[in-house]
Amino acid sequence: MRIPSHIGIIPDGNRRWAQKNGMEKHQGYHFGLKPGLELLHLAKEYGIKEITYYGFTTDNCKRPAKQLEAFSKSCVEAVQLIAADGVSLLVVGNSQSPAFPSELKPYTVRTDINGGGIKVNFLVNYGWEWDLSSIGENGNSREKIFENLQSNDISRIDLVIRWGGMRRLSGFLPVQSVYADFYVVDSMWPDFIPQEFYNAMTWYDKQDVTLGG
Amino acid sequence: MRIPSHIGIIPDGNRRWAQKNGMEKHQGYHFGLKPGLELLHLAKEYGIKEITYYGFTTDNCKRPAKQLEAFSKSCVEAVQLIAADGVSLLVVGNSQSPAFPSELKPYTVRTDINGGGIKVNFLVNYGWEWDLSSIGENGNSREKIFENLQSNDISRIDLVIRWGGMRRLSGFLPVQSVYADFYVVDSMWPDFIPQEFYNAMTWYDKQDVTLGG
Repeated sequence: MRIPSHIGIIPDGNRRWAQKNGMEKHQGYHFGLKPGLELLHLAKEYGIKEITYYGFTTDNCKRPAKQLEAFSKSCVEAVQLIAADGVSLLVVGNSQSPAFPSELKPYTVRTDINGGGIKVNFLVNYGWEWDLSSIGENGNSREKIFENLQSNDISRIDLVIRWGGMRRLSGFLPVQSVYADFYVVDSMWPDFIPQEFYNAMTWYDKQDVTLGG
Repeated sequence: MRIPSHIGIIPDGNRRWAQKNGMEKHQGYHFGLKPGLELLHLAKEYGIKEITYYGFTTDNCKRPAKQLEAFSKSCVEAVQLIAADGVSLLVVGNSQSPAFPSELKPYTVRTDINGGGIKVNFLVNYGWEWDLSSIGENGNSREKIFENLQSNDISRIDLVIRWGGMRRLSGFLPVQSVYADFYVVDSMWPDFIPQEFYNAMTWYDKQDVTLGG
C-alpha cells in the first residue's frame, strides 16, 4: 500500500456538530480533542512521517469572542495532549499577535518529546498571507520559496483530509498543498471514526502521483 | 441562484481519453478545443464575469516532446478560438521561456476583442513558483500579495472545476484559489457535456461562502 508521507488535517464541522447536538456553537470545539489524538495514533500505526493539523487561523479570529475563546482553548489543550505523546512537535502561526495563546509559545521551536517520532505540526493563528509574506524576490526556485515561507519547517503535503463536507482549502498552507490530493469526509469532525481514515488511505493508494508532470 | 463571479477550469483527462479511444496520448488534446468554447458560452449565459483555463504548465513541459508539441499547439488554437469571440482576453505564463508559443505573445497584455465582455484568462507555460516569485517582502497584506503576483490581473477564484477525476489543484493559481470551492467531474475533458457544468453550478449554489471566517 502506498502511504502518504505527510497528511494535512482540516478538522471542520465542530460548530455544526454542536448545534445538531443541542449545544451552542462554541461548545463543539472541545469534542474535537479526542478525534485529534485518535487520528495521531492511527497515523503512527500506518507509518505516516508528518501530520499537520489546521488549528485556527487569523480569518477565524473575526468570529464572536465566545467562539474565539473556545477554539483557542481547545487548540491549547490539543497541543498539550499531543505533547504527552512521542512526537516531534511544532506550532506554526503568527506568535507576535495577541491572538496567539501564550501557553503555546514554547512549541514554536520544534521539540522532540518522549524520544521524538512522527513530525506533528499544529497551525495556530495561521494566515496564508502571513505565511507568504517572507518569500522575497530572491529567485523563483521552488527550494527558495519553501525556504522562505514562515512555515518553512513544514514539508510538501501528499494528502489533505477535510471533515465537515466542504470542498475547499480555506487558506490551508497554499504552497505545501500545491500538489496535494484532497479527500473530503462528509461527517463532522467530532463524529470522527477510524473507518474514515482507512477510507482516505485506501483512496489515496489508488491515486497517481505526478507532481504536475 | 448564487453564481460564482470567477471560475477556474482544469481540463484534465485528454491523454486518458485518447487511449480509451484507441489513439496515442498526444492526440487527445485536440479534442479539448470544442469543450473549451462550449463552456465559455455557457459561462456567458450564466453571467459569470471571469473564467481561467489551465492550459499548460512548466511542470507539463517535462513530458515527451510529442505531447509537448501537441498541447502547445492545442493551447494556441484554443486561444485563437476564444479570440474570435467577444471577450477580454489575457494569456498568463512565463513568456520569457522558449516553451512559450510565440503566437500567443500578443495576448500577454489584456485585450478587449469584439467589444470585450467576460474576462478570459488562459494559463500557458504557467508555474506556481514563477507566479509567486515576485511577491517580495514589502508587507504581508493580502492586497500587496495579490498586486505582486505575476498573475496579478487574475482575481480571486470562487469555484474550481476539474475534469478527469483527480482531486488536486496541481499548482493551479495557489493564491487565487485559497478560498475556492473545488468541484470534480469524473469524466474526461473531451467528453464534456453541458450537464456537468449545470451540476457544478447547482452544487456551488448550496455552498456557504465564508472566506475562511
